[in-house]
Amino acid sequence: MINYFKADPWKIIEEGFNPQYNEIAESIFSIGNGMMGQRGNIEETYSGHSLQGTYHGGVYYPDKTRVGWWKNGYPEYFAKVLNSTYWSGLEIRINGELLDLNTCKIVQFQRELDMQHGVLNRKCVVALTNGIEVSIESSRFYSLINKEYAGLRYQLSTNKNCQLDITNYVDGNVVNKDSNYDETFWNEINQEVRNHQTIVTVETKKLNWRVCTAVQFDIFNQEIKQQLTHTPTTQSKYAAAHYSFPVTAGEPWQLVKHCVMATSFHHSPEAVEIHAIKTLEKMSASTFQAHLQMSAAAWAKKWETTDVEIHGDIKAQQAVRFNIYHLNQTYCGDDARLNIGPKGYTGEKYGGSTYWDTEAYCLPFYLVTSHSSIAKQLLVYRYKQLDKAIENAQKLGFNNGAALYPMVTMNGEECHNEWEITFEEIHRNGAIAYAIWNYIQHTGDKKYLSEGGFEVLLGIARFWAQRVHWSEYRKRYEMHGVTGPNEYENNVNNNWYTSYIANWCMQFTAECAEWLSQEYPNEWKSILQKTNFHKTEEIQHWNHIHEHLYLPYNEDYQVFVQHDGFLEKQLIPAHELPASDRPLNQKWSWDRILRSVYIKQADVLQGLYFFEDQFDMECHKRNFQFYEPFTVHESSLSPCVHSILAAKIGEPNKAYEMYLRTARLDLDNYNNDTEDGLHITSMAGSYLSIVQGFGGLRIRNQQLQLNPYCPPQWESYKFQILLNNQPVAIFVSKQKTEIANLSSKEIQFTVNGKSKNVEANSSVIV
Amino acid sequence: MINYFKADPWKIIEEGFNPQYNEIAESIFSIGNGMMGQRGNIEETYSGHSLQGTYHGGVYYPDKTRVGWWKNGYPEYFAKVLNSTYWSGLEIRINGELLDLNTCKIVQFQRELDMQHGVLNRKCVVALTNGIEVSIESSRFYSLINKEYAGLRYQLSTNKNCQLDITNYVDGNVVNKDSNYDETFWNEINQEVRNHQTIVTVETKKLNWRVCTAVQFDIFNQEIKQQLTHTPTTQSKYAAAHYSFPVTAGEPWQLVKHCVMATSFHHSPEAVEIHAIKTLEKMSASTFQAHLQMSAAAWAKKWETTDVEIHGDIKAQQAVRFNIYHLNQTYCGDDARLNIGPKGYTGEKYGGSTYWDTEAYCLPFYLVTSHSSIAKQLLVYRYKQLDKAIENAQKLGFNNGAALYPMVTMNGEECHNEWEITFEEIHRNGAIAYAIWNYIQHTGDKKYLSEGGFEVLLGIARFWAQRVHWSEYRKRYEMHGVTGPNEYENNVNNNWYTSYIANWCMQFTAECAEWLSQEYPNEWKSILQKTNFHKTEEIQHWNHIHEHLYLPYNEDYQVFVQHDGFLEKQLIPAHELPASDRPLNQKWSWDRILRSVYIKQADVLQGLYFFEDQFDMECHKRNFQFYEPFTVHESSLSPCVHSILAAKIGEPNKAYEMYLRTARLDLDNYNNDTEDGLHITSMAGSYLSIVQGFGGLRIRNQQLQLNPYCPPQWESYKFQILLNNQPVAIFVSKQKTEIANLSSKEIQFTVNGKSKNVEANSSVIV
Repeated sequence: MINYFKADPWKIIEEGFNPQYNEIAESIFSIGNGMMGQRGNIEETYSGHSLQGTYHGGVYYPDKTRVGWWKNGYPEYFAKVLNSTYWSGLEIRINGELLDLNTCKIVQFQRELDMQHGVLNRKCVVALTNGIEVSIESSRFYSLINKEYAGLRYQLSTNKNCQLDITNYVDGNVVNKDSNYDETFWNEINQEVRNHQTIVTVETKKLNWRVCTAVQFDIFNQEIKQQLTHTPTTQSKYAAAHYSFPVTAGEPWQLVKHCVMATSFHHSPEAVEIHAIKTLEKMSASTFQAHLQMSAAAWAKKWETTDVEIHGDIKAQQAVRFNIYHLNQTYCGDDARLNIGPKGYTGEKYGGSTYWDTEAYCLPFYLVTSHSSIAKQLLVYRYKQLDKAIENAQKLGFNNGAALYPMVTMNGEECHNEWEITFEEIHRNGAIAYAIWNYIQHTGDKKYLSEGGFEVLLGIARFWAQRVHWSEYRKRYEMHGVTGPNEYENNVNNNWYTSYIANWCMQFTAECAEWLSQEYPNEWKSILQKTNFHKTEEIQHWNHIHEHLYLPYNEDYQVFVQHDGFLEKQLIPAHELPASDRPLNQKWSWDRILRSVYIKQADVLQGLYFFEDQFDMECHKRNFQFYEPFTVHESSLSPCVHSILAAKIGEPNKAYEMYLRTARLDLDNYNNDTEDGLHITSMAGSYLSIVQGFGGLRIRNQQLQLNPYCPPQWESYKFQILLNNQPVAIFVSKQKTEIANLSSKEIQFTVNGKSKNVEANSSVIV
Repeated sequence: MINYFKADPWKIIEEGFNPQYNEIAESIFSIGNGMMGQRGNIEETYSGHSLQGTYHGGVYYPDKTRVGWWKNGYPEYFAKVLNSTYWSGLEIRINGELLDLNTCKIVQFQRELDMQHGVLNRKCVVALTNGIEVSIESSRFYSLINKEYAGLRYQLSTNKNCQLDITNYVDGNVVNKDSNYDETFWNEINQEVRNHQTIVTVETKKLNWRVCTAVQFDIFNQEIKQQLTHTPTTQSKYAAAHYSFPVTAGEPWQLVKHCVMATSFHHSPEAVEIHAIKTLEKMSASTFQAHLQMSAAAWAKKWETTDVEIHGDIKAQQAVRFNIYHLNQTYCGDDARLNIGPKGYTGEKYGGSTYWDTEAYCLPFYLVTSHSSIAKQLLVYRYKQLDKAIENAQKLGFNNGAALYPMVTMNGEECHNEWEITFEEIHRNGAIAYAIWNYIQHTGDKKYLSEGGFEVLLGIARFWAQRVHWSEYRKRYEMHGVTGPNEYENNVNNNWYTSYIANWCMQFTAECAEWLSQEYPNEWKSILQKTNFHKTEEIQHWNHIHEHLYLPYNEDYQVFVQHDGFLEKQLIPAHELPASDRPLNQKWSWDRILRSVYIKQADVLQGLYFFEDQFDMECHKRNFQFYEPFTVHESSLSPCVHSILAAKIGEPNKAYEMYLRTARLDLDNYNNDTEDGLHITSMAGSYLSIVQGFGGLRIRNQQLQLNPYCPPQWESYKFQILLNNQPVAIFVSKQKTEIANLSSKEIQFTVNGKSKNVEANSSVIV
């Protein structure tokens, strides 16, 4: 699929229609606003392969889950991202013939995602068998301002006089692609046609999530609104209005859909429909164009702090903006109950909304590009789910307030059931603690510890303290039965990464306890009471673990050992594998993958990335050079960490190679699965590869650190960040680095280890 | 449930009816003949909880299988034991009132399984609300002679004159208890009523297994056959004949069902029904009593060589006969396509028919109790499935004819999908090779090696040779990613048992190759051609593995280490666990079980049991004493090995304690799951605990070895075996051991290591 989409700095462009790529294109052309979103489905009838998808943040379905053999502690359900009422459909007939891109002759076709303004445009000309050519131009967007609003403008003209039949419909009869036995998840509540409004309200069969989709349909002839009669139709979960009128050759007709979608995630169930209809009245008083302009202005503001400019490589430019665009439309920090699903609003696969991807990969993006309140929402999300994490740990036999956050969740409950993941891939707990540390580094908001942050840390530290055990035989603490970030190893003992981050969590929690007890004595008192924290004894225990924890290290190779027994494998570099064996997860059986040395995703290196200040450069190099050859990067989350580390240890070619693997993953459909939706969370990794990798950006104690270089393949690049919520722009070329302080405060920073400062509203070149 | 069933040396007796135990009793009272079988369902209507089950050997259903996350190499289906047409039902009305044990008043009730004659009897008296008391006596059996025949005699009398309505029905509308979404597995073929015959033919929706169930229904009044008219009814998969006639108080009426069940496992699909009807005509020409007598005579013959008499402990006597009875009715060696399902013909749970239980536990029972041709059938079963085992190994990435036998199978294809079992519990391959060695030890039939035995060994040896790998770092062969017999450890490295048996397989195969190439040069030539065996190179490789294979041993404890890392666990004996934590598999999460030291089933000890001649007594003792305290015996297959080893190392109390855990497992419903069916394969373990444990019986090179003692709890015990197909009886009391040679050849044997001999048809006392 390389080069299928045309290169452009601000747009993703598809020229010509290729049915075999339609589902991939639908993923790529997804639009959303952080609260809801939709795949790039074609508005008129399309009888070919298509995954029609409309999704609302927070509205999910606790589907039955089946495994061959149940195990104690497995969750009772699998939270599915729910495909919801389809609002943008139009059934169009010209002289009675159905307009269907799968059966018509396509004369011209162009779909483009205008990332700058957040709008999906399509132009096409099709020839019907009755000899009439129809020209279509459509624009669709999800408003970044009015988060329940989406708009469609659909312009149509014909080359001959003819009779036009249009059915504006809203259809709640949708099925999840991944539903078992084609089960449907929605019950009918109401469907009606009122004047030119089509309204469908549905409710999920479980949990009773209610969604009302209300559409105002306006028809314009040469920009003049027409008052046409229509025939209404309703069926279960379906409302439609049918219009029939003659059109003159060459005359442009505009069809506008103003759509308001309201859900019981934000309103009481009884109020959902009334709210939607009222809001629709307000929204439809204004024009499509006006709504689009407001939304585009909001997009411009987003781009101000999140954009990365790349000069001299238009495909790299396009790719990084594509990644940033999708991150911005997946999560806006509006609501602490929302998070960043692995497919965002672009597909259904994987279910659940929250993985450790959020803390490990996405949070750093929002920390440097967005107001600190947005990143904070992601922390609050976990705090709100602390009780459930404690319950989850209890189910597995832990006590005393130990918390194990779920691997995959929608509402705080675990909803994944492979034992080696659910019960053993516990390092996710570490990333959640690390996120708090990271947030404080960027924002200085240590007060958050008193607002919930410390309780989260304590639950996590208590979990680790119980999860290790004392080996009397070896006279040390060990941690058995773990799956590290490298999921190509299951149920291993003494996974270096997991043990290291566990120990770090306990030490960091102890440090925070000291600080909090001194700085916030009142809050501290109530925390002690609430958590029943025995500070002295518990910290003593953590310190004992710290002193005696086994962290595998090998003297011969001078590397940290991924886990016990790793060096006893056949140590054959991945490049020696026959190409026909790749990707391993499609070609090899699971036991063969497990027995092999091959790493799905950075494991020891993930630890070096998180805790880089605790290891010297030589240590970074040795471990990178040892593990990199065994890493097959069959997780989309892997290459970015390698890219950042390669940049750090001075391997720019490797850094660039790894960057390329993440940046155009979906655009070029590297993993052959883009039709299922986009790899949203790994998109943050692409951004970080540039900013943390090539730019060498770090924020420590709210101070900016840079170690920048320009990849030889580029002329220069530029990115803008928010440092303590103040804008700073960094330009890096082969010759120079320019730091522009766009704020009204002086900034101190270091470049390549040297302290510098830049005054308010000015820039320095280094 | 202890003492629920009354003690009796030859019978299992239930006195009084307890609806809450009905499903348990149905399992206990199952009857069968090695080709088909049925649970102890009550003939008349029963509207309470019941698992109605009728099963035919070899007739299975490849059901959809679902796991949360698929892995390469998983099978596409799960083979379900199929619940089949129900033949023994009678709907009875007295003056219009339905006879239903769930709603009538039960005045008297006794169900008994007469194990000596292989017949299930029931007597009961019930009072209807209309004031009439009905006395019932029923007898049901599956013929051990005519393997497609089952008979029912149902005698009934009333205490008042009344009108009797009887519907004799055959019903194919049955559902598997474990079917997803209550799916049915049978399609209608034919149902009809011909004179007094009710016939139903059905076919499975997949694989098209056809089953015809044909019943002749005769009514006798005071032993005189009555010619009554009836009203026939047929519905889909259902045929019934309704009789209505007046009965006089006190007069006994006998209802007899002769049933023939024929399946396409034995006949061509088109011939099934014709065959059943013809056979039924032949069978119904004779009387129920005559059929029962013939079958009982066959049971008497079975008991001659399989019985164990225990004197001075009636419950132990009952228990061991219960175990032997079920083994005999589950497998008779008639057909090399049949095997021993974990639930036999007593329930549906677990699916599949064949586990490694067959070779490890059941085969030794048949080897000492039955003609050698019966045990041989079990070997031939695996030989017939060798091609599928090779395919299975190929799917997992092995080549050169390596064979991996499935963990669970019906037709040679794997049908289990937990990766840690399916792909990793590969020691099953070892048991299949060991069975060949064991068979030769008992029978001397080394010629079997040329008939398929060697090909099986070679496939297995080749698998092991590829499954180990050379660790360059450690300079030795290792075997990673294994689950041993102890399934409470998954994906471990260097499991001692698995590595030991792997090495043994390769060495034994090499030895057989030498012997075969010399003794059967012609057959050898064609084997070489068929298998493409490079004898010199492959054996060289096996020897290299033999010399360099890592078999973990710990010098401090002087024990074999179950697997890498085992000693680094918390070594707390199981008796220190709180009772509320047991059984662990119901109380603990899976990760906690895996991390713990607790052993589900003998693992190192299983190896000592198999290969005892290769280890000295001190080694046996040290390993037993080390591992026994950590073993929780949550597999029904575990205690017998512990019992046999405890007997061997001179711990009679432990041996007896372990014996008790297996012998009355189902009778006393220890595991609280008897309602699902009986633990057929572990029943062999109970037998072995006595014969190999207390009796110390071994057969090496067809020579009998004994190390007998009498458990202090018993007066004496006696068992009869077939040695080289000749009967030998062994009597053991506290004072003496008597070996009776019932054959016409002299026997040499050893007792407590001393050589003895006993002449034909005489006995010696030692």
